[in-house]
Amino acid sequence: MKHDPNMTIESYRQALLEGEAEPLDWWHMCTAQIEQHEPTVQAWEALTAGPPALPKASQDERPLYGVPVGIKDIIETTSLPTTWGTRGYLSSSGAVVDAAVVTLLKEQGALIMGKTVSTEFAYFTPGKTHNPHDPSRTPGGSSSGSAAAVAAGMVPLAFGTQTAGSIIRPASYCGVFGFKPTFNTLSSDGVKAFAPSLDTVGWFARHIEDICTTFSALTRAPRITPLNNLAGVRVAVCNLPASLPLSHDVEQALAYAQGRLVEAGAEVVPLALDTRFEALVEYQKVVLAYEAAQSLASEYARYAGQMGPKLVELIQEGQAISYMRYLEARMATDTLQQALSTLFDEQVDVMLAASAPGIAPEGIESTGDPIYNRAWTLLGVPCLNLPLSQGAYGMPIGVQLIANRWQDQRLLQIARTLLRG
Amino acid sequence: MKHDPNMTIESYRQALLEGEAEPLDWWHMCTAQIEQHEPTVQAWEALTAGPPALPKASQDERPLYGVPVGIKDIIETTSLPTTWGTRGYLSSSGAVVDAAVVTLLKEQGALIMGKTVSTEFAYFTPGKTHNPHDPSRTPGGSSSGSAAAVAAGMVPLAFGTQTAGSIIRPASYCGVFGFKPTFNTLSSDGVKAFAPSLDTVGWFARHIEDICTTFSALTRAPRITPLNNLAGVRVAVCNLPASLPLSHDVEQALAYAQGRLVEAGAEVVPLALDTRFEALVEYQKVVLAYEAAQSLASEYARYAGQMGPKLVELIQEGQAISYMRYLEARMATDTLQQALSTLFDEQVDVMLAASAPGIAPEGIESTGDPIYNRAWTLLGVPCLNLPLSQGAYGMPIGVQLIANRWQDQRLLQIARTLLRG
Repeated sequence: MKHDPNMTIESYRQALLEGEAEPLDWWHMCTAQIEQHEPTVQAWEALTAGPPALPKASQDERPLYGVPVGIKDIIETTSLPTTWGTRGYLSSSGAVVDAAVVTLLKEQGALIMGKTVSTEFAYFTPGKTHNPHDPSRTPGGSSSGSAAAVAAGMVPLAFGTQTAGSIIRPASYCGVFGFKPTFNTLSSDGVKAFAPSLDTVGWFARHIEDICTTFSALTRAPRITPLNNLAGVRVAVCNLPASLPLSHDVEQALAYAQGRLVEAGAEVVPLALDTRFEALVEYQKVVLAYEAAQSLASEYARYAGQMGPKLVELIQEGQAISYMRYLEARMATDTLQQALSTLFDEQVDVMLAASAPGIAPEGIESTGDPIYNRAWTLLGVPCLNLPLSQGAYGMPIGVQLIANRWQDQRLLQIARTLLRG
Repeated sequence: MKHDPNMTIESYRQALLEGEAEPLDWWHMCTAQIEQHEPTVQAWEALTAGPPALPKASQDERPLYGVPVGIKDIIETTSLPTTWGTRGYLSSSGAVVDAAVVTLLKEQGALIMGKTVSTEFAYFTPGKTHNPHDPSRTPGGSSSGSAAAVAAGMVPLAFGTQTAGSIIRPASYCGVFGFKPTFNTLSSDGVKAFAPSLDTVGWFARHIEDICTTFSALTRAPRITPLNNLAGVRVAVCNLPASLPLSHDVEQALAYAQGRLVEAGAEVVPLALDTRFEALVEYQKVVLAYEAAQSLASEYARYAGQMGPKLVELIQEGQAISYMRYLEARMATDTLQQALSTLFDEQVDVMLAASAPGIAPEGIESTGDPIYNRAWTLLGVPCLNLPLSQGAYGMPIGVQLIANRWQDQRLLQIARTLLRG
């Protein structure tokens, strides 16, 4: 075979079309990678037994034909149990249908490799997963298994969700692309709700091309092709919160990304978000806690005694938040979303920001801090982790590229142009 | 007993506190009403067998203590099966936890009376339910059973969802209050997704006081008390689409409501929404179809042959909608949401609009037309059906009162003031 496990989805498709690959080749390669790395990485909650049945129609109509995919274990499946990261105190094998996104993937020809480890209900209690770059470190969370599985070459594509920083942060820690599209781009059907105003389905890949291919396959957006260069593209460096001093690694990563953007023709423009934006981090915490106390009411009523202490604390905090405080956060967010939209319309095409406070922390007892993700998730804007740099100890560190709501195609096109060649 | 099945939740609570009622009295009264009316109305998909266990804590902490509640059958429950209005081709008894709203209700002391009939996945294929005011007519949909059960006195309170017009329309047809709060006020956890940007949990009651009590119980908003009068409250009559000629019954109902509002001290102000707002009805259809094709992908893949033709048509229509067309609808909605918000801030406190094109149509093969609800649902604003009028054949006909997003408390306070005494 002329293909290797690190090929792009599109190159596999070409190989299939030219008869140089078989539809289950990638599945078998991934199985071998899992056999090799799973004992160390522990990215999987459950694996599909044996190669799956391939869809019957011809592969050329299906952009993800034969592509093995990991599914975060808060997303329901009929063929594999769902445990929601509870380590078994809540488990279901009784889903009557797959979550919508699982069927949409299957319809594009994707093969469900298995369920990837999630933190408890996608909050902070970690699962068993280790960072493939250094098993003594966390892969980040909550989409821990999806980020790690992609980073370890076990699958080319894996799905997760972000409510605070659960895609961008683990992507940064694991050195892969992670994409959180505009809020509500993909249906949350069959995905355990945590904070419905924030919960967003997204995905991880090792290639920007695969992030783009998947976006087009699932949304039916036109194929995303690179531009000649980034001339005319205005970029502003913009961290939220802005007040937090940047770590050395983050500074370096931002400077490197800025350099690459300028090299590709983009213009870096100054932009200081006014101080009202700083409050978004706190507002996100209010919305998260208030909505989680609602959304996890049933689980809390029955399993509070088995829940991790941080989740119990969050739910109790949420139960104590007044409606007026929640309203204040939601109304201020609406206002700032409009203000941000005006900035994007008038002054800047994309923003560049820290994905995480630094490299993946040591130990797997914590999944790190989503502080640099909270505001953007609350604003509902598309965010893409670019795994461009290494920090201390040779560990990966990413930066995120952010666009206005519904500018996902533009964001991906800019990233694809930046990374070509 | 000094109480009757048509008492308010608060008066039952008073009777309980004063020892004049027992905690299961209302349950037994509702059971009697169901025995009497269910053969004709057929509001229930499943009923809880026998009186449920009452929560142990003292009732004075629980505003819904002993209140029997109906739950629309697209909302998952552990004690009763869920059929999603499919008449059995999809059915689950395997929910591992209740939907969040069910637990929140139980925690407030409510008693789950049963699951109420929904149209198929809350779209247009009707269930078996008849209008309690005239069994030859539809109760409306998709929350058919919830509206009918409340109207027939079988429960004082029932929950539903609105994606197009599934709360306000059946409330109008059945002559009860129906409230759709601001989008995402209550968690959609455990509620089958149809169009996640639109799906909104809401409820029905025979008394405005009960709508308010339930709102405060579930959100922890302060108790909603009536004002002395509506002096200073600006009301504009504003139908969307504005171009549709109003039926005689709707004109009468709007005129009557306007008169009542003026009588209570409100000022009717002129307001013509600019023509861009007219497009919202079409945008809602685009968003609905695009998102439904995603959210029902699994059900469609497996059960298309058993689905009603209208649902199949919608999903196929959604599959054919381009991402660009979906984007256009979402972006235009964002812009119009801001424009509407400015109007509310500057010119008007509440809007008064048609709830439905007329009285409940004859026959139960169709659930009527949500045309007057689509734009408001897409805008995410709170809507309240006021059952103030009768139209032809003595059938009820409502009007809706609409406020800006997050002005739910103000909306309910205005309605409560209007209806006092």
